[in-house]
Amino acid sequence: MDPRVREHAEVLVDWSARVEPGDDVVVSVGEGAHELGVAVAEKLGAVGANTVTTYASEEMTRAYLHAHDGDFDEDPAHQLALYENADAVLFLGGDRNTTGTADVPPEKTQASSRATEGVREAYLSTDWVKTLHPTRAHAQQAGMAYGEYRDFVYDAILTDWASLADEMARLKERLDDGSEVRLVKEGDDTDLTMSIENRTAVNSPASVAYDSHNLPSGEVFTAPEEPEGTVHFDVPMTIQSRRVTDARLVFEGGEVVDHSAETGEEALGDVLDTDEGARRLGELGIGMNRDIDRFTYNMLFDEKMGGTVHLAVGRAYGACLPEGEEGNRSATHVDLITDMTGAGTRLEVDGEVVQRDGVFRWEEGFEG
Amino acid sequence: MDPRVREHAEVLVDWSARVEPGDDVVVSVGEGAHELGVAVAEKLGAVGANTVTTYASEEMTRAYLHAHDGDFDEDPAHQLALYENADAVLFLGGDRNTTGTADVPPEKTQASSRATEGVREAYLSTDWVKTLHPTRAHAQQAGMAYGEYRDFVYDAILTDWASLADEMARLKERLDDGSEVRLVKEGDDTDLTMSIENRTAVNSPASVAYDSHNLPSGEVFTAPEEPEGTVHFDVPMTIQSRRVTDARLVFEGGEVVDHSAETGEEALGDVLDTDEGARRLGELGIGMNRDIDRFTYNMLFDEKMGGTVHLAVGRAYGACLPEGEEGNRSATHVDLITDMTGAGTRLEVDGEVVQRDGVFRWEEGFEG
Repeated sequence: MDPRVREHAEVLVDWSARVEPGDDVVVSVGEGAHELGVAVAEKLGAVGANTVTTYASEEMTRAYLHAHDGDFDEDPAHQLALYENADAVLFLGGDRNTTGTADVPPEKTQASSRATEGVREAYLSTDWVKTLHPTRAHAQQAGMAYGEYRDFVYDAILTDWASLADEMARLKERLDDGSEVRLVKEGDDTDLTMSIENRTAVNSPASVAYDSHNLPSGEVFTAPEEPEGTVHFDVPMTIQSRRVTDARLVFEGGEVVDHSAETGEEALGDVLDTDEGARRLGELGIGMNRDIDRFTYNMLFDEKMGGTVHLAVGRAYGACLPEGEEGNRSATHVDLITDMTGAGTRLEVDGEVVQRDGVFRWEEGFEG
Repeated sequence: MDPRVREHAEVLVDWSARVEPGDDVVVSVGEGAHELGVAVAEKLGAVGANTVTTYASEEMTRAYLHAHDGDFDEDPAHQLALYENADAVLFLGGDRNTTGTADVPPEKTQASSRATEGVREAYLSTDWVKTLHPTRAHAQQAGMAYGEYRDFVYDAILTDWASLADEMARLKERLDDGSEVRLVKEGDDTDLTMSIENRTAVNSPASVAYDSHNLPSGEVFTAPEEPEGTVHFDVPMTIQSRRVTDARLVFEGGEVVDHSAETGEEALGDVLDTDEGARRLGELGIGMNRDIDRFTYNMLFDEKMGGTVHLAVGRAYGACLPEGEEGNRSATHVDLITDMTGAGTRLEVDGEVVQRDGVFRWEEGFEG
């Protein structure tokens, strides 16, 4: 076993999920994530946690959804009970084919997703963490050799999280104090304003102790409201197994009123049609992980890349919201990324330029 | 996909587990059982059942147990809740290495088993079924070629269960009316009597509708008491990944007072030391499946073979017991088999010979 697999398991269990003796942990193992599963089982045994291991198979999901009539029962009792009684849920992603559910009708995926909103709320209430075991399929999706991709993944995961957390605290402070964010990309059809009044930004260094649930992470995110304007997402991405490039969203009165994409426009439309909340913003995220230095068509990595900003339509994270406020609700949460490193690009908070051409105010080379 | 995989899934879901629309089903998938998992997911989707898929990995189990200090928490809440809220549990066995947990200290396996007795009771209260996807590892354990083994497994599974049920009903009737069973193998150190007073035998044609939870099945079993005498188990078997041959048990006052084995005596001793109930009988089973025509070192098949009888130490099945009686309780249930086809061999109920030299009373060639 590559020694980095065990290191990955240690970071996941100790730093990210903060698992303690006696915790009831659900370990979800992807089809290609067996090896990481073994390392995580070993680590959880050493900690003295209790495990239930679930199997997240795209081929089983595809077969089930294809055969089902689409009228899904709401929040099956056994599934709900499993997560309601769990302290932590560790999602070990790792596909053998990243397009393994490509031919499932999107409306079926959406219907299934809508029917299990309570299940999702239950696991989102735990110390859940989503991570990825590098497989050949993910390497292929990234256009990389297998060994090259493993290096990329472990560089991003086995990093000095505490030190990155300190750096990200600066941006969090600025967002917490601010009330409006504006994204501008001159000559690129992007000018969007949104309110972040009374929102709390999450400094996300891949640990539940910071309300940060992805490994790797390296972003600061919040839950914006009332977006107005247009945004062009020039980073290509994969939505429900389908490639989407050059997506554009137009917001009026806080909702998407127009959308387009060079490729995958239908996939984008399907997402927006999931439910009412799918047409509103759930997240503004600012990538700050400079260890992630290229796009790999995987949101877990792409959205954390330094010099990018992402917006998600759909569900907002509770951690960003004031006490008692529900924020945007939706069965979906789909991130879209825009590159902020081009000339004439800026991120403003209350009119002050915080990032210009991909360089933050406090970084060397910033031009005020 | 071999068309027999889908047929297997259909028999499992329709005949064996009797899954109905809206049922909450746990599907447990072994490391090598993925293909059957896909077929079962498809079938459950078509039925309209709700699924949680768990992953039964020997390598994860081994890693967890090795690392754990052995002081296991009792019945973890999330695991218990999952099974308490399930209508059915489908165990799709299928190892990639049938000795995958061979180096785990038996006392750790036992301690883990003892700690989860409530979990076990919870799933035993569901419409659970245990079956096997034929893997290369199981073929190797059986000493068979892969294609040969697949034929063997599907012959045993894709049989006419309704017709076998009719045949087995005769033996069930005889056992239900009887009060004492005696096993005798002349010249082979076997003469054992046991009480079956007030017991109800289970006619086990691989369907929960008959309280029969193995696919394949093909046995009639009951829960005997007060065994007295000696029995020699001349069929080799695998107990907790260890080979055991020529086991002998001596019963006095209903309990094992002496035991031996040609090989694997320690494994046998470990089982008997699990708890108090592990020294008492939990089951007398009579194999009646003539489609299973050879030993494959797998109890799921071996104990059903026509012309064999098996006894289990440990837990008794509730279905055999009179209302309100608990029967033998134990964290373990380990079956041991003896060949009843040799000359001078007989199975008696209340002094009447029911089977002689492997031939039942009602079969051609029976010598009364």
